[in-house]
Amino acid sequence: MTLSSPATYGELLERMRHESPLVQCITNFVAMNFAANVLLAAGASPAMVHAPEEAGEFARLAGALTINIGTLSSSWLDGMLRAAAAANEVGRPWVLDPVAHFATGFRRQAIDALLQHRPTVIRGNASEIMALAGEASAGRGVDAGDSVERAQASATALAQRSGAVVAVTGAVDWVTDGQRALRIAGGSELMPRVTAMGCALTCLIGALVAVAPQSPLAATASALACFGAAGSRAAQQATGPGSFAWRFIDALDALHASELAAQVTPA
Amino acid sequence: MTLSSPATYGELLERMRHESPLVQCITNFVAMNFAANVLLAAGASPAMVHAPEEAGEFARLAGALTINIGTLSSSWLDGMLRAAAAANEVGRPWVLDPVAHFATGFRRQAIDALLQHRPTVIRGNASEIMALAGEASAGRGVDAGDSVERAQASATALAQRSGAVVAVTGAVDWVTDGQRALRIAGGSELMPRVTAMGCALTCLIGALVAVAPQSPLAATASALACFGAAGSRAAQQATGPGSFAWRFIDALDALHASELAAQVTPA
Amino acid sequence: MTLSSPATYGELLERMRHESPLVQCITNFVAMNFAANVLLAAGASPAMVHAPEEAGEFARLAGALTINIGTLSSSWLDGMLRAAAAANEVGRPWVLDPVAHFATGFRRQAIDALLQHRPTVIRGNASEIMALAGEASAGRGVDAGDSVERAQASATALAQRSGAVVAVTGAVDWVTDGQRALRIAGGSELMPRVTAMGCALTCLIGALVAVAPQSPLAATASALACFGAAGSRAAQQATGPGSFAWRFIDALDALHASELAAQVTPA
Repeated sequence: MTLSSPATYGELLERMRHESPLVQCITNFVAMNFAANVLLAAGASPAMVHAPEEAGEFARLAGALTINIGTLSSSWLDGMLRAAAAANEVGRPWVLDPVAHFATGFRRQAIDALLQHRPTVIRGNASEIMALAGEASAGRGVDAGDSVERAQASATALAQRSGAVVAVTGAVDWVTDGQRALRIAGGSELMPRVTAMGCALTCLIGALVAVAPQSPLAATASALACFGAAGSRAAQQATGPGSFAWRFIDALDALHASELAAQVTPA
Repeated sequence: MTLSSPATYGELLERMRHESPLVQCITNFVAMNFAANVLLAAGASPAMVHAPEEAGEFARLAGALTINIGTLSSSWLDGMLRAAAAANEVGRPWVLDPVAHFATGFRRQAIDALLQHRPTVIRGNASEIMALAGEASAGRGVDAGDSVERAQASATALAQRSGAVVAVTGAVDWVTDGQRALRIAGGSELMPRVTAMGCALTCLIGALVAVAPQSPLAATASALACFGAAGSRAAQQATGPGSFAWRFIDALDALHASELAAQVTPA
Repeated sequence: MTLSSPATYGELLERMRHESPLVQCITNFVAMNFAANVLLAAGASPAMVHAPEEAGEFARLAGALTINIGTLSSSWLDGMLRAAAAANEVGRPWVLDPVAHFATGFRRQAIDALLQHRPTVIRGNASEIMALAGEASAGRGVDAGDSVERAQASATALAQRSGAVVAVTGAVDWVTDGQRALRIAGGSELMPRVTAMGCALTCLIGALVAVAPQSPLAATASALACFGAAGSRAAQQATGPGSFAWRFIDALDALHASELAAQVTPA
């Protein structure tokens, strides 16, 4: 598998649909239902398992793990840390979504602890990635206050420092492993008007990286291309954010692997 | 009320709509919103009350209780056990949904403790019911790896041993009280592509058994027939799992009691 | 801003869309996704932050706070009390939604503790408001058993005693600050058939009161008018509660400020 072949992204989607990987999603209360439906529509098998009593044990069964701190609590953080440790022990990839990690002291401490478990991929909006790289950001609450372009240098620095693939999502997404970078187009202005779109994308990255753990950059780009292509298609018939949400699920289900290549360009 | 009359299932639906029973649903975070909307569309009054501080007190007010271990934690298990004990004390029926109970040690212990409170109905997919009966299963995560047909003997044994009505749901559902058995048709291939369908069905069984606590086999079959009929109707116009989900809610709301009889046949 | 000008309600909506206030919503598990989508469609920026570890710190960042006890637990109550105290310290408005507060002893104690933090607005159904004012009510679970008309005297007494604006929502809404009162029309019979409509409305009141903290009566009426107008519009094309839910989100997004005035009349 090479990034130079545009067919790579579609092949990864087909492989994911064929294997239907079990993806353990520790995500927030707002996103759980939508993220599970996104994964089912795309072809994966989601499992929302987060309790400290079992999160680590379950991580050994799953093909990948995703962790999102949107509605964090101490008990959930405990489950997240156990799951990340277990994923590392058995060599499974895991994806980190640092929602609004700069907003409170509790979140800043949580994200420091999670980063020590070396995520395979980090996905955030521009403000989250900039703040993670130590830059000043205009972030407020869960919405980005900065453009993807402004966050590119931060993303590269973060990728080099952490060893993770870093994805900055927004109007046009940008993903890098610290050396190479890809730009992913598509989507719709309605996407930030629907809650949990980014959280669900993080879960889908988990599904793709589960079937290509050695190629996290290509797997992440494939997930972003799925969202770009399905988002563009859904927007064509949507009459607002309410109709966009279910049309997006239908579009993910109907997505052809051949549609992905056009979404991705080297940056 | 006799099972020999095909009108029974529709009569139970009409009775449920007339009484609009208060159903206490202790279900998982993924299913809560969808399950509440399913119950409202079908005609019941759902209440999601689970905290140990009040779950037992509330169970004395409700017409039925449903318990689903999808996103279990120790605190929630405490609330579940108190609610089940209270339901038994006041003679109210309760329904158990043993989601992926075989996946971790925490779940196995939880399900053992819950079974001691003698559920009125147990609903699961084939893998969950087979594992509950002590059989080897191909279950993985929350999705079934076995066919309903393979689970029939397990369901009968489990019903006889536990005294519960046991429903195995899948392409064609199968429900038994250990002596008699019914087969329920209908539905759509899109149903396993929408998250929390099974969890919502468990809650609807609670609504039907609330109005016919002496006839849990017929009440369960009536709930399964509602899902079969509404699922078939929703699938006629759905263009994918996203549009199926809301069309299913509309179909439950529009369901005629007379549609149920054709879904159910003696097994 | 005066209540005598019918344009007030639309102007507040426009101001809210312009400022896109950050609204901290501590709401129940059933409502979280839908409420976040309602706020995004209306033009606000929702943040679901509730953990005791950060709820108070976050309340200092937000333009308003909303608290809903739908799926209460001890840990969440702790976060609610910290957030309400912090909102008061920094002079931010906050909105209380006392879901089924009469149902259990745990809820009764919780609501007493929350009321001591002097909410800016209280929104409930008729049974909830009557019980809060010390009247006998026909409430059962989360659904109202009384008419809005029956609750008007209770609402006025509660507003005078608590200093809060009190909104009673139902077929025709009624809101008062203890001196003046407004009646808000519109909506649809499908609204009580969709879960979390009232909970989402509470969050939208938070968004409006965030941009007009000195005019909580007008801000609350503006939020109720948004629901009335969008509900009427959504009902025109809905074929059941499933299609109503997403059409309602689309209608909020498409709402013209000029539509609000006709919904509100002095009571």
